[in-house]
Amino acid sequence: MTYQLKKDFKMFTLNSNRKLATEMAELLGCELGKCSVAKFSDGEIQIHIEESVRGSEVFIVQSTSDPVNESILELLIIIDALKRASAGKINVVIPYYGYARQDRKARSREPITAKLIANLLQNAGATRVVTLDLHTAAIQGFFDIPVEHLLGVPLLTQYFMDKELDDLVVVAPHNGSIGRARKMANLLNAPFALIDKRKLEEGGAESISVVGSVEGKNAILIDDLIDTGTTITLAAKALAENGAKTIYAGATHAVLTGEAVARIESCPIEELVVTNTIELPEEKEIPKIKSISVAHLLVEAIDRIHNEKAVSPLFE
Amino acid sequence: MTYQLKKDFKMFTLNSNRKLATEMAELLGCELGKCSVAKFSDGEIQIHIEESVRGSEVFIVQSTSDPVNESILELLIIIDALKRASAGKINVVIPYYGYARQDRKARSREPITAKLIANLLQNAGATRVVTLDLHTAAIQGFFDIPVEHLLGVPLLTQYFMDKELDDLVVVAPHNGSIGRARKMANLLNAPFALIDKRKLEEGGAESISVVGSVEGKNAILIDDLIDTGTTITLAAKALAENGAKTIYAGATHAVLTGEAVARIESCPIEELVVTNTIELPEEKEIPKIKSISVAHLLVEAIDRIHNEKAVSPLFE
Amino acid sequence: MTYQLKKDFKMFTLNSNRKLATEMAELLGCELGKCSVAKFSDGEIQIHIEESVRGSEVFIVQSTSDPVNESILELLIIIDALKRASAGKINVVIPYYGYARQDRKARSREPITAKLIANLLQNAGATRVVTLDLHTAAIQGFFDIPVEHLLGVPLLTQYFMDKELDDLVVVAPHNGSIGRARKMANLLNAPFALIDKRKLEEGGAESISVVGSVEGKNAILIDDLIDTGTTITLAAKALAENGAKTIYAGATHAVLTGEAVARIESCPIEELVVTNTIELPEEKEIPKIKSISVAHLLVEAIDRIHNEKAVSPLFE
Amino acid sequence: MTYQLKKDFKMFTLNSNRKLATEMAELLGCELGKCSVAKFSDGEIQIHIEESVRGSEVFIVQSTSDPVNESILELLIIIDALKRASAGKINVVIPYYGYARQDRKARSREPITAKLIANLLQNAGATRVVTLDLHTAAIQGFFDIPVEHLLGVPLLTQYFMDKELDDLVVVAPHNGSIGRARKMANLLNAPFALIDKRKLEEGGAESISVVGSVEGKNAILIDDLIDTGTTITLAAKALAENGAKTIYAGATHAVLTGEAVARIESCPIEELVVTNTIELPEEKEIPKIKSISVAHLLVEAIDRIHNEKAVSPLFE
Amino acid sequence: MTYQLKKDFKMFTLNSNRKLATEMAELLGCELGKCSVAKFSDGEIQIHIEESVRGSEVFIVQSTSDPVNESILELLIIIDALKRASAGKINVVIPYYGYARQDRKARSREPITAKLIANLLQNAGATRVVTLDLHTAAIQGFFDIPVEHLLGVPLLTQYFMDKELDDLVVVAPHNGSIGRARKMANLLNAPFALIDKRKLEEGGAESISVVGSVEGKNAILIDDLIDTGTTITLAAKALAENGAKTIYAGATHAVLTGEAVARIESCPIEELVVTNTIELPEEKEIPKIKSISVAHLLVEAIDRIHNEKAVSPLFE
Amino acid sequence: MTYQLKKDFKMFTLNSNRKLATEMAELLGCELGKCSVAKFSDGEIQIHIEESVRGSEVFIVQSTSDPVNESILELLIIIDALKRASAGKINVVIPYYGYARQDRKARSREPITAKLIANLLQNAGATRVVTLDLHTAAIQGFFDIPVEHLLGVPLLTQYFMDKELDDLVVVAPHNGSIGRARKMANLLNAPFALIDKRKLEEGGAESISVVGSVEGKNAILIDDLIDTGTTITLAAKALAENGAKTIYAGATHAVLTGEAVARIESCPIEELVVTNTIELPEEKEIPKIKSISVAHLLVEAIDRIHNEKAVSPLFE
Repeated sequence: MTYQLKKDFKMFTLNSNRKLATEMAELLGCELGKCSVAKFSDGEIQIHIEESVRGSEVFIVQSTSDPVNESILELLIIIDALKRASAGKINVVIPYYGYARQDRKARSREPITAKLIANLLQNAGATRVVTLDLHTAAIQGFFDIPVEHLLGVPLLTQYFMDKELDDLVVVAPHNGSIGRARKMANLLNAPFALIDKRKLEEGGAESISVVGSVEGKNAILIDDLIDTGTTITLAAKALAENGAKTIYAGATHAVLTGEAVARIESCPIEELVVTNTIELPEEKEIPKIKSISVAHLLVEAIDRIHNEKAVSPLFE
Repeated sequence: MTYQLKKDFKMFTLNSNRKLATEMAELLGCELGKCSVAKFSDGEIQIHIEESVRGSEVFIVQSTSDPVNESILELLIIIDALKRASAGKINVVIPYYGYARQDRKARSREPITAKLIANLLQNAGATRVVTLDLHTAAIQGFFDIPVEHLLGVPLLTQYFMDKELDDLVVVAPHNGSIGRARKMANLLNAPFALIDKRKLEEGGAESISVVGSVEGKNAILIDDLIDTGTTITLAAKALAENGAKTIYAGATHAVLTGEAVARIESCPIEELVVTNTIELPEEKEIPKIKSISVAHLLVEAIDRIHNEKAVSPLFE
Repeated sequence: MTYQLKKDFKMFTLNSNRKLATEMAELLGCELGKCSVAKFSDGEIQIHIEESVRGSEVFIVQSTSDPVNESILELLIIIDALKRASAGKINVVIPYYGYARQDRKARSREPITAKLIANLLQNAGATRVVTLDLHTAAIQGFFDIPVEHLLGVPLLTQYFMDKELDDLVVVAPHNGSIGRARKMANLLNAPFALIDKRKLEEGGAESISVVGSVEGKNAILIDDLIDTGTTITLAAKALAENGAKTIYAGATHAVLTGEAVARIESCPIEELVVTNTIELPEEKEIPKIKSISVAHLLVEAIDRIHNEKAVSPLFE
Repeated sequence: MTYQLKKDFKMFTLNSNRKLATEMAELLGCELGKCSVAKFSDGEIQIHIEESVRGSEVFIVQSTSDPVNESILELLIIIDALKRASAGKINVVIPYYGYARQDRKARSREPITAKLIANLLQNAGATRVVTLDLHTAAIQGFFDIPVEHLLGVPLLTQYFMDKELDDLVVVAPHNGSIGRARKMANLLNAPFALIDKRKLEEGGAESISVVGSVEGKNAILIDDLIDTGTTITLAAKALAENGAKTIYAGATHAVLTGEAVARIESCPIEELVVTNTIELPEEKEIPKIKSISVAHLLVEAIDRIHNEKAVSPLFE
Repeated sequence: MTYQLKKDFKMFTLNSNRKLATEMAELLGCELGKCSVAKFSDGEIQIHIEESVRGSEVFIVQSTSDPVNESILELLIIIDALKRASAGKINVVIPYYGYARQDRKARSREPITAKLIANLLQNAGATRVVTLDLHTAAIQGFFDIPVEHLLGVPLLTQYFMDKELDDLVVVAPHNGSIGRARKMANLLNAPFALIDKRKLEEGGAESISVVGSVEGKNAILIDDLIDTGTTITLAAKALAENGAKTIYAGATHAVLTGEAVARIESCPIEELVVTNTIELPEEKEIPKIKSISVAHLLVEAIDRIHNEKAVSPLFE
Repeated sequence: MTYQLKKDFKMFTLNSNRKLATEMAELLGCELGKCSVAKFSDGEIQIHIEESVRGSEVFIVQSTSDPVNESILELLIIIDALKRASAGKINVVIPYYGYARQDRKARSREPITAKLIANLLQNAGATRVVTLDLHTAAIQGFFDIPVEHLLGVPLLTQYFMDKELDDLVVVAPHNGSIGRARKMANLLNAPFALIDKRKLEEGGAESISVVGSVEGKNAILIDDLIDTGTTITLAAKALAENGAKTIYAGATHAVLTGEAVARIESCPIEELVVTNTIELPEEKEIPKIKSISVAHLLVEAIDRIHNEKAVSPLFE
């Protein structure tokens, strides 16, 4: 597939997704825009865009992943620079939208940081957001600019389809991912089950049970992201204890902090499939974790945005 | 309990919750503010506030329930009038926040009406929102003004606790209410189950199954709202077919449109408990539907806001 | 006359002016954009735009006429949907701008609803307004986006010119339409007169008199809108009593609520000419009321806006 | 009457109404705030507030009268200074609101300067406007902050009532002041008439006639402002030619530019009553022009705003 | 050099730089847009744009120089008119940005007028600013729209280079112009010196000394603007007293108020070079003052903006 | 000195100035507000305010110093939390305002990050800023909320006065600190000199010279901040080479990155005085560096703000 980019097209990347952005530029058949992103010795970010962007339609690729606060500031600062340099449109491509779990006040006097970040991006001058698998779909509504919300589940599902596994059950490792699990189960024409966590007493241990039947089945745990790995590995253990045959897992965003990789390594999960919305450092690359690329999906979306064609076919 | 209101306190109601507002005024020991809300023959709303609100802390009670568009316009228009009349603070008490289900783009080229309404309220001049059981908690983040998000589940749970039922199971009638069901199950120290709806083929029938065990148990279906009644009554049937002993249901918002009341009347639900966030017209008052009042809860919140005491104890 | 529309042109209609919009589309030689505007059983409006609008210059045709609150919400919701769907420009064509009579605080603690609606439209994302005969010209200034304010008086005047009546007098039925009457009188080279209403005592009857001479003349009463019909029919009676020969009336907006049609039917007006800015339901179509179409005028304005030609020739 | 001002009350004046502001301060029993308003040699305004305004409720008295552009800049600059100096509330008292006649686009490609000024005042940081006899009432809606719109007509009417004239007729010198004339006629229980100006041919002379009967009567011409004096003196001549006995005139704002005073001096008007919303320079003080003060009215409004009492009694 | 302007290009001028704008139009090979800028007898500005600007990229040339307040209002009013007339882009070319010296609070309770003006321009609808030698570079940051900040120092430096003077020293007449002096010294490969003003005692005289060596050298005093001329002429005297051979001076903006011209005439400055960012009235044209034109520089910038080419080469 | 705090007073600190904030709380005689500031394993900041702030006047103490991006995010997030928790006023006390050196576009296509941060703080909900020695005074104008800009120079000057040194000269280490040096020289009644850096050729070495006389004198180098220490230590060497007797240095903000401490240790500076606007880690505490506290100054300002007394005496 070749893409037709207009003369005013520019794509920049910052520090969090250089590999993915490079892959995207290759697919698009373009060069990444020249832009230095340095840090002064006092930690302040210094950005200088090194080619004219006057009147251009700019796409910036940057996940707001760890180091999350720096990634956000880099993004805000380049938006400011682009705005002042008369860029025509400032499209922000955020493969992984950090702080998305702080999407409501769970307790009194908490921030809603996912909204704060949305406000900051708009206030700085972003004119569109392209993102993937937001933790909560309603985060789209945190913006008043267009948000193209792409989905990772179809990519993950395709991966499992290609495996031609039979006797499947799709399992939601916690309440929040039931929607995703239900959707994947439909695509795979499989039943679904749910891991139920319950706090036995105040401050005490949690009891974990499986709601629905998994015995003797090939189970696929599905989630939007894996952070510390506790939830998914406890779920895998519960599935194993309840007689699941083989246990697979899939998640769009490989946050994988702390002991996550070790936990996954040692748990009953056979294989974990993630995407490259977050760049996996080498030390986290273990055979059990397969990574598939979202570059094609993002590039397809960018082409449609740039050439003003409907993005909706990407969802169907 | 008596409340201490300062001299600058004013409470107004519009057309959608006159009964509830009157009950609240009685509890607070105050009069409702004088305000005419009329309609011209061409359908235009005419509002005239008939007492000074200069510098006052005003609370307006209005659910954005059916006729939803008129309820919203009434609210926006009185906010405009209050702002221009120099009200000090404009607190909008929305027991039921309509359009809350349009909280994300489910398909391309849909609006996010729940966000639009939030923007309109803020743009008109509201300075705070008090509401109850938003369909999605993230709607709080649609606002940049403080939102006091009260919960109906504890009221409904208390109702069932008082019944002293044993051998309970709490059931989520669909994926979206699993959070509520899990919370209620915890409070009642009961297991929980889930109704799973699955589309068998494109455009075809749905298969409905129960995930988890309900046989021989007293089941409580819990949801944030009941609209056409289809979901809850199908869920009740599925529970009956799976051997549930008695089936109760609870929901904060009694939207109850179309055939809802008839459906509930004729389904296996023993009793449905709702609240008065939406005023139930007489023709919908049937013995099977019990209504409990949220007046005490709202009044407690208003007192705390007005006297600048923490609202958080209401959540604990 | 044929129009040259660019590829990015889209025109949508909502529920209040389907006939007029269809006529306009025919004149323009285009199809109306596909868009479903439905209502859920609880009264909430559901809008889905069914074709891509990415980068398009969109025109939405919708009078904010009865049911006025629903018409406004439909308009705001589609604007939200278009904005989120990346429409390039969102032109709102409002043949009749409702709530226009609430354009100032006539008493303390009233809203200025005409301004509120202007704010809401802008806040939702409208980028231009095209409208006709605003009740007060200053409403243009309620907006900070461009407003194309077209005039119905020339159309109505032409209608009377074509009748080749002699010995004319143009009469303003109340103070607010003196400007219009003066302009029409100039165009017809006729004198003008004024109906003077005066409240005799607090809460008592009004005395109605004619200021200026109408005896033996063909009188044309001119107004921007006819709502309940009381003003215009009382004016007609006063003209008859003062010896006017034949009495005609013209008004751009046929609001015609309550007993308006019956009043017109039975009053001394020979003929009332209105336009189709508001769709006249069949039961209001009586022989005495002639309706002329504003489609040509609107289409001409849209063409000029779309092709960036001066709109001013339409005023000269 | 004595006024109770709170400790946080401050009143400042700039250059256009020093006399009026001094009179107001005396009535209120307070000192005017210390503030230097100087001009650098290059014409730039330099403002320095010389006493603390931290947390204060500030009232600034300044008509935007000739030199209008400087008056506006002075006002905007002091608002900026007050905002940055942490004033609590910034009330702008504008006895005469200049640029009010540019309240709509009369032709294509004209500004709506009255709206622009409203936006600038709000943008700079004004939190309330107090003004008198706006040229068009809808200018209130140009603001989204509270506007207290006081009326001069009752003051002028009282003046004529005190004269105990009989056989009165109130006359509107042009279409735009019919509302005022009608109101005054009601208060004086008198009939009213209208001066009708009509352009005979393009670029040619105007014909002026009197609509309504004035013969043998004491006529009062009433307008919101007198600028060049052409309109009012032509009207007076027309009244004289139509047999009016004595001709009085009243107007709130004495703009009086160019030949206005000479015109009034030499025309058939017996007496012209104006107010001091615009400071009359000595050379314009002629016996025929009586000036009455609006200080009491403004002071009463300020007291009510400051002490959060209803301002509405001032309109009744 | 010929310029390629697109069809949508329009350039307007107001009253402060008619000559410069005419020169610019000639260089660009275009006509100035038709626009009447009149004043009513009461001092109100009346602007009417006399040709269509629909969708155009408009450039307005206007220094906010004396009469500064009127110049600002003219600019704001035409921006309002252009915005309402649907101009596509509104570029404001301000060769001299007045009020720039009020760029911070030097004392408590002062305004920051340079920021206020920036806010007003943006609020009115400007979409870009092109300006020259801002008093403080940080004023760029007072805007959130793109600012093209051109420099006059290279033009002035070129002028002195062409003179081929040897044994130069560049002198900053006060602390604020050290940056400019340092830059010019670098370009001319010359040393630099500084005039140090020091208040000897409170309210007393100032002592003026030269820091650095100037004896026997050709000295060039460099500043951004010359207002009353006191600073530059005192500096010149100090240089003379310290043995400078010949004294030249250069400044971008010739504000030249009060006794400035006389002071320059009679001081030891041999020649003062300024630019035409401010139109020099005839009475200020003396042989000692040479004026060079910024038209080429501005025209080059406009061409690059209009054709979306990088403006950066103008700085290198 | 004891301070009178009202009941609604709350002071919080985040991570960058805990020591200073504790000292301030002791001086004020209050407790620091309870607030947890944690970090999730993926680097996301989690803030929870643990006591009611409803209606309170809140002061948050946080320098945006290294780790600067995290410090900024912490600040923005707590502002969001406070706003949603209904804090009455949100005063942000930023002893050291980071990113201040990016206050203008030095080259094309650079951001103005100091303005971006100002916008973000305001957008998040800050209602006032209290800060100390901004790199450029014009940064005050980047805000539209009140900024209390305190000065460190008087504190540093007092320190040197107490030393009773004679034969002083105050030296600006670079152009940007000439204003500060001039002010200190005035206070100490001393002459001043300037370090002049000049790039000899493109990319080549710099020549450093002293403009003014320092031979045999006690020299004080003064700057707003010391970052890498290169500038100040090169300046010290130049002073030594030019015969200065003893060399002192003073700077408000001890950024001290990289080799700064080592450089200072080994350079001819006798003593460097800084303040605690940035918390000095133990490893940077060397005998040559004296730190004086700004706690008294900040506390005095907070008291005056809180009790609505003029802050101006702090500048005199």
